[in-house]
Amino acid sequence: MKQSTQLFNRIIKVAELNPNLLKAQYAVRGAVMIKADKYNKMLKNPNHGLPFNDIIYCNIGNPQQLQQKPMTFNRNVVSLVYSPELLNNPTITSQFPSDVVQRAQTILDGIKENTGSYWGSGAYTHSQGLYYVRKNVADFIERRDGVKSNPDRIFLTDGASPGVQSILRMLIGGKQDGIMIPIPQYPLYSASIDLYGGSQIHYMCTEGKGHKWTTSIESLEKAYEKAKRDGIKPRALVIINPGNPTGTVLPKEDMKAIVDFCVRRRVCLLADEVYQENIYGDNPFISFKKIVDEMGLTDTFELFSFHTCSKGFLGECGRRGGYYEISPGVATEVIEQLYKAASINLCPNIDGQLTCDLMVNPPKKGDESYEQYQKEKNAILSSMKRRAIKLVEAFNKLPNIECGPSEGAMYAFPQIFLPEKAVAEAKKQNMQPDLFYVLSMLDKTGVCTVPGSGFGQEPGTYHFRTTFLPPESKMEEMAERFKKFHIEFMEKYK
Amino acid sequence: MKQSTQLFNRIIKVAELNPNLLKAQYAVRGAVMIKADKYNKMLKNPNHGLPFNDIIYCNIGNPQQLQQKPMTFNRNVVSLVYSPELLNNPTITSQFPSDVVQRAQTILDGIKENTGSYWGSGAYTHSQGLYYVRKNVADFIERRDGVKSNPDRIFLTDGASPGVQSILRMLIGGKQDGIMIPIPQYPLYSASIDLYGGSQIHYMCTEGKGHKWTTSIESLEKAYEKAKRDGIKPRALVIINPGNPTGTVLPKEDMKAIVDFCVRRRVCLLADEVYQENIYGDNPFISFKKIVDEMGLTDTFELFSFHTCSKGFLGECGRRGGYYEISPGVATEVIEQLYKAASINLCPNIDGQLTCDLMVNPPKKGDESYEQYQKEKNAILSSMKRRAIKLVEAFNKLPNIECGPSEGAMYAFPQIFLPEKAVAEAKKQNMQPDLFYVLSMLDKTGVCTVPGSGFGQEPGTYHFRTTFLPPESKMEEMAERFKKFHIEFMEKYK
Repeated sequence: MKQSTQLFNRIIKVAELNPNLLKAQYAVRGAVMIKADKYNKMLKNPNHGLPFNDIIYCNIGNPQQLQQKPMTFNRNVVSLVYSPELLNNPTITSQFPSDVVQRAQTILDGIKENTGSYWGSGAYTHSQGLYYVRKNVADFIERRDGVKSNPDRIFLTDGASPGVQSILRMLIGGKQDGIMIPIPQYPLYSASIDLYGGSQIHYMCTEGKGHKWTTSIESLEKAYEKAKRDGIKPRALVIINPGNPTGTVLPKEDMKAIVDFCVRRRVCLLADEVYQENIYGDNPFISFKKIVDEMGLTDTFELFSFHTCSKGFLGECGRRGGYYEISPGVATEVIEQLYKAASINLCPNIDGQLTCDLMVNPPKKGDESYEQYQKEKNAILSSMKRRAIKLVEAFNKLPNIECGPSEGAMYAFPQIFLPEKAVAEAKKQNMQPDLFYVLSMLDKTGVCTVPGSGFGQEPGTYHFRTTFLPPESKMEEMAERFKKFHIEFMEKYK
Repeated sequence: MKQSTQLFNRIIKVAELNPNLLKAQYAVRGAVMIKADKYNKMLKNPNHGLPFNDIIYCNIGNPQQLQQKPMTFNRNVVSLVYSPELLNNPTITSQFPSDVVQRAQTILDGIKENTGSYWGSGAYTHSQGLYYVRKNVADFIERRDGVKSNPDRIFLTDGASPGVQSILRMLIGGKQDGIMIPIPQYPLYSASIDLYGGSQIHYMCTEGKGHKWTTSIESLEKAYEKAKRDGIKPRALVIINPGNPTGTVLPKEDMKAIVDFCVRRRVCLLADEVYQENIYGDNPFISFKKIVDEMGLTDTFELFSFHTCSKGFLGECGRRGGYYEISPGVATEVIEQLYKAASINLCPNIDGQLTCDLMVNPPKKGDESYEQYQKEKNAILSSMKRRAIKLVEAFNKLPNIECGPSEGAMYAFPQIFLPEKAVAEAKKQNMQPDLFYVLSMLDKTGVCTVPGSGFGQEPGTYHFRTTFLPPESKMEEMAERFKKFHIEFMEKYK
């Protein structure tokens, strides 16, 4: 973007803008990606002069950008829902499995029931989303957890992020209201807390033996106590499970201890469970809702759980679909406030709502599409698992870099041991040492990742986050390019 | 929603929530609609005991809820984009006009160019939206106004509302920052200003001869001066043109005077132009961008213009598509802040982006779909015009109600002259007199509208807003039901 050349006394001055906005930072789409996009444009010129021929975007969990295919069943259903007249054209319907056609009709009925719209997807829905979809989400949760779920306590959202933001915005009245977030954390949380003018309360995750990350109650207590001393009231605890960026899947006993902490310290729990389908290790995913129920706290515990269509094996990021569920312990008057806020934006986008419906209600055994659906699903998840293991192995073969297992989610978060000279050079260039490392990697290899400083880390340690989403052949090439860069970098600054 | 029956000491207490959220009000989906939804559920029981058999939702501009058909071309293109493999199936493609198939391919190319996604619509896009779409939006603006437009200064959004909110959130740092909004206004503005903790600065629109509404500079000056005296800094002026709820289309000379006011008083301008296609009277729609250019101010004037896919003849409300354009006068550093905020939410939903693309880039003369597209478009717009005229006429035949012409948008905003006894009864029931009237209307007729108090009005005057979106046969029935109610109401309280 070119700078306007006119020099005049502007009305809107950056220094006078909302200070909370100025403060907020979001590294996942920040400086590194902006530079990667610049390189990507340069690469269109055959004489680009860069030492690589393509950008490998590993900065964000965006599977379809890296050639992951969407689920055929889901896409075909939506195609028919959008042009309902196609359902009356046998030449068209003959080209689809029968359950695709049936599902499209069922969805159209569900939309009409809720919106009065004969054409399906063009009317505003209920501000919490279509009842038809929320009912299916509730059924999905009940099947998953064996615990009752109420569609009136489900809000469909444009991806998980706006859902998280709705809750944070509601809980934060000012600087005195604190939200407990893990370090390292997904920067949606830090950015949103800053944006709403609240206080971040950092609890440190521990990078233990073999670089396996854990969340200890000690660390939660320490953060809680410090906030209190600073005059900040902890309002909520955020847990990301499976972990982003750490890739950890919490064991059951840790989850119980966390719930117990929330009860004891009187903070509500925000459970970010968007990677629940992305499990590669021995710990299975268990929802906090189920844990709360096992502890006999279903009626009183105050929990918000988040899910999305962007991750898992769907990877439908651009469709912006997701939901959150509010536990029975939260007062209905609180839900009324959330409803009011949702109604100002009218409704979540219907495409995301339908994608969400298809996520929670896949073809069943015996349905015509079932076999193909399972095949596609398993191919994606098993490939992801292979890539997760391979990438971590590749890192651990190199000097000055150590990486814990990726038990879940879509990321590896290796620790890098930067030589003093590299740290000094970064300081000279007025940047965080891991940003300096990550930008050097981009400059030499075209591989785009995110520095650990964007997520937070123990002072004096350095990390970066990378996805393992490139296709398997590309992943090998990426590992090769990375290896060469890493060894040269360490050599240069040793 | 049932109240949780347990009585316990909840962690989240309503009184402790974000006070700005508690303050915000949004009447369009408020108390009246919630009651209408309740009736709608009751109507499913054949023995419902209500004096009507259906709810006529006139509270919101939601055309497809009321049987308006979407544009066939647009829907068919999106159907093919969502399942790209269909483009390789000649049995399928033979069922569509050739330009539908071509357009789907062009869009898929545009998406791949921007996101790297081979499957089109499942990857995150650029946080401002696909460059391909933004380029088409810029071309559309250039064709409309004859003034250059830069895709880098266009943000695609999930409908116009989140776009408006982005700008307000950026401009508002606290109570001292004021936004000038018309009275009556669309309550997105009042609600969002409250939500971000700013100050509403009300300027009164004048209900003149024949109930035609005007925006006078005198009124702007008066509001500006009062704000200054109150220690509030006016940061921006909001103009809704065509007017919601007033239905006014601003004449050119008034627009010039408004731009002049902004320059003189140093406030930026937010031009809500979402109803630009909905014109029924003699004043044509002219964009503020064009006016600014005619005044020779293109390079320096600070303007944000909003548009949407929800209104016009598309009426694709549920798809949540829209855009805003930032004028060259706004500093690039300001745009960087907007980009950062957009990136926290990753990207606007792609379905809305595609709907936006199809809005700004309709079939051209000579294209196979052109004739049908024009036919569908003209049928919708001419029917809307007939209904606008008919409804206003119907109101003006009755006593104690007077309504100005609906020159644009989707609404009539009649003034009602409530008898003292009705006002007293409303006070007894602790509600605004026009809310009392509108709820009585709903109780007797099933017609759901919004009281003038939800938009703001001159104290002592009463109004309601109704759409004229029911199909023509239904509109006559609505007018009949309304007439009976209105006469009985006036009789009862005279």
